[in-house]
Amino acid sequence: MTGILASARATEGCWFDVAGARRWLTQRRLEQRCSVTQVPFAQLRGWRFEEHTHDLVHDSGKFFRVQGLRARSDFPTPIEFEQPVVNQPEVGIVGLLAKRFDGILHFLVHAKMQPGNVDLVQLSPTVQATRSNYTRVHGGAGQRYLEFFIGHQGNRVLIDQLQSEHGLFFLRKRNRNIIVETDAEVALTDDFRWLTLGQIKHLARDAHVVNLDTRTLLAALPLAAGAVDAKAAGWTLERDSGTFAEALVASTLATSGGSQSTAAVLRWLNDVRSGAEITCQPCPLRAVRAWERDDRELRRSDGGYFKVLALSVESDSREIASWTQPIVHPCERAIFAFVTRRIDGLLHFLVQARMEPGVWSVIELGPTVQFVPGAPTDLEEPLLLKDLLNGNAGVTRHRSMQCAEGGRFYRYVTEHIVTELDRRDDRPVPPNFAWMTLGQLNTLIHAGSCVNIEARSVLGCLEVSDASLEGSHR
Amino acid sequence: MTGILASARATEGCWFDVAGARRWLTQRRLEQRCSVTQVPFAQLRGWRFEEHTHDLVHDSGKFFRVQGLRARSDFPTPIEFEQPVVNQPEVGIVGLLAKRFDGILHFLVHAKMQPGNVDLVQLSPTVQATRSNYTRVHGGAGQRYLEFFIGHQGNRVLIDQLQSEHGLFFLRKRNRNIIVETDAEVALTDDFRWLTLGQIKHLARDAHVVNLDTRTLLAALPLAAGAVDAKAAGWTLERDSGTFAEALVASTLATSGGSQSTAAVLRWLNDVRSGAEITCQPCPLRAVRAWERDDRELRRSDGGYFKVLALSVESDSREIASWTQPIVHPCERAIFAFVTRRIDGLLHFLVQARMEPGVWSVIELGPTVQFVPGAPTDLEEPLLLKDLLNGNAGVTRHRSMQCAEGGRFYRYVTEHIVTELDRRDDRPVPPNFAWMTLGQLNTLIHAGSCVNIEARSVLGCLEVSDASLEGSHR
Repeated sequence: MTGILASARATEGCWFDVAGARRWLTQRRLEQRCSVTQVPFAQLRGWRFEEHTHDLVHDSGKFFRVQGLRARSDFPTPIEFEQPVVNQPEVGIVGLLAKRFDGILHFLVHAKMQPGNVDLVQLSPTVQATRSNYTRVHGGAGQRYLEFFIGHQGNRVLIDQLQSEHGLFFLRKRNRNIIVETDAEVALTDDFRWLTLGQIKHLARDAHVVNLDTRTLLAALPLAAGAVDAKAAGWTLERDSGTFAEALVASTLATSGGSQSTAAVLRWLNDVRSGAEITCQPCPLRAVRAWERDDRELRRSDGGYFKVLALSVESDSREIASWTQPIVHPCERAIFAFVTRRIDGLLHFLVQARMEPGVWSVIELGPTVQFVPGAPTDLEEPLLLKDLLNGNAGVTRHRSMQCAEGGRFYRYVTEHIVTELDRRDDRPVPPNFAWMTLGQLNTLIHAGSCVNIEARSVLGCLEVSDASLEGSHR
Repeated sequence: MTGILASARATEGCWFDVAGARRWLTQRRLEQRCSVTQVPFAQLRGWRFEEHTHDLVHDSGKFFRVQGLRARSDFPTPIEFEQPVVNQPEVGIVGLLAKRFDGILHFLVHAKMQPGNVDLVQLSPTVQATRSNYTRVHGGAGQRYLEFFIGHQGNRVLIDQLQSEHGLFFLRKRNRNIIVETDAEVALTDDFRWLTLGQIKHLARDAHVVNLDTRTLLAALPLAAGAVDAKAAGWTLERDSGTFAEALVASTLATSGGSQSTAAVLRWLNDVRSGAEITCQPCPLRAVRAWERDDRELRRSDGGYFKVLALSVESDSREIASWTQPIVHPCERAIFAFVTRRIDGLLHFLVQARMEPGVWSVIELGPTVQFVPGAPTDLEEPLLLKDLLNGNAGVTRHRSMQCAEGGRFYRYVTEHIVTELDRRDDRPVPPNFAWMTLGQLNTLIHAGSCVNIEARSVLGCLEVSDASLEGSHR
């Protein structure tokens, strides 16, 4: 796996420059016709509230089930709560196809409509397929390019990871993140184009352009695949290198450790995971207290946290022309932020061990700040949140508005922030936080089910192209 | 981590030879006074069947809960079942202390009584502590040597892994397997002694001598920690080396691959995990069909698979002098076996991807044959079982009778077998099986929650001492 850094630096691709890519997306948004309407639950086709449990289920028994969950945890502080949760016991495939043009890695993105997306059409991975999708439960046409990711003979698999989805909303749902490089001829339709890593990352500065699954796939690729890669891209990697981009690459290459060894980081994670006592028991939706339902929404009695709604969708660009579906709608904007700092000249990321009832490992690593208003896990004011909002958490290195996957979430808007603290700012951090290099974070991402989707979503936005050297961008 | 192979080869330790170690264990068995009696459930102190759910629970809400589980899986073939399961939502610590004497690594074993052990006293790890244990829920004395494993400053951590427990009986229970090397003075009581790896492995030939947790800790240690280790132990590692012990070491060192690369093995595991559709829903014990309870046992109506019993225990060697507890009793002897074969001169192990409702990752890797009579997952005749019983599955390289952890299992006897097929015996294997080197298996063990406890239990018995060259042992 070489050539990652070269692609991440490239904002001129073989097909487009960044402006051209933007124009193409705008064109797709204009040409794809779709309408999304909130409807009463009674208008959902094939979905019903099960009599005995009140769970929201599909007649086929497939897709997913909205049921209840009771959680009790003593980490980091005692907490006990009940809530609805989406139970989808299958592993989705999220795949990005890569190919070299003029020696530079390009990635095949799909201008794809999802009903929950702000602006509807976003740059999605080559393939997003739930198992229901690819076994054709919904009766739609087959997914394009799926053959590269299922039984991928003759192609190079760059990434293949099982990762947790949103642990506040999904019950132990995992996605398989795959990046495959091919040499084959690939026929394109109007909705697919090849972009460099640098282009996609640059476009992620814009609000609601790059889909969540695309961002997490980019986070699965280290910014540089070793010193050889860095050298080939013409980078010297001084520890105290000047720009944030150079510091990112140096931090990526520090896989064996920074202020603490990778073995010590893993022990810390084991300490946290084995020290906590957590129970997460599924239960019937009927048994969840302080939530209520009318004909149009399932909501918490105080109106906070999230709602479950019903949508009716029409589209001329998807495998089926119209459908209805339940969808999760977080009520307020969330904030996901990484605070970074150079320690002994090497850039470190402040990582938080978080209990979330639905992530595969119950405790996974999140960004420094992960604030979902109304979430029972986020009732106490998160560390550094106020500083971040007041501009007292260092220099802004990235700031963007993103939304979560629009197939399951209706306009779940999150602000993504990366800041860099002054190197002398050695404020202490609580024991559920740890500083680590980007190389160490990549090792944990590679292991699977260690770094949560919110953290990976932010990490995917990190840029190293020359354009990023222009400095902070708001 | 060096010196593993030297310790694994050594059957003469600094404290004992093997015969001396046997005599010491016999002495401990004679001197520890204990009695174990099956009693009616009504005589359990602090335990009761919860009214609403019929779950078996402790008044403190701690320890564990025997509840129900409903599972449905399409892997490897469609199956649906309900059964009782032990729910213990905490991570236990299983720790082995290591120290060098005359340069050879020794490990501190505990001659410890557990009520479910055949022969009661076995060679257990230095520390076995549930969280209830070390936070003193049961009001007993503190565990000896626990300080080496909790906040292990100044010691070298050789192994630190989170691993699943028996997935047929426990619901997502994990243990933290830790091996710590110390230079400190360690005061011993009569029940603790230092043994070499070679000694413990040699003693594992004897029935019911080496405790399950000890065996799995040994499985966590690669037989050699790299070529340096092998060279220091005076081993040449030809691919086609003659003895099984040499082939084991060569296979251990083949971490990057044998007949397929480690990346390919990991992709196969991801394929299997993401291709399966599995739901495991906890439920009240009351809702489990075809199981029944009288005043002395909870059992399946056909009397097969396992029972839950109540025991009354008195002991003069444990932290508390007498207690009562529920315990799981599998009704018939189980068989766990690895079939191996030299492929291109390199020893490979035939590994099986198994769905078990209670393992952390739902699908983990088991031994070639894992046969628990009556288990819903093992109703079809396991591949190679008949051949193994008829002696048509190669030369026997290990065969022993072991039992599972006697704190939770009452006389759960399992026959452990390792055989080596003729190198020309290239019978095809189904897609849920894969051949891999011991080095690849070690990589997966190191990752955690990939290799199940039954597989690790067998792998821990693999010997490389000169004594093992005497050939097969029955």
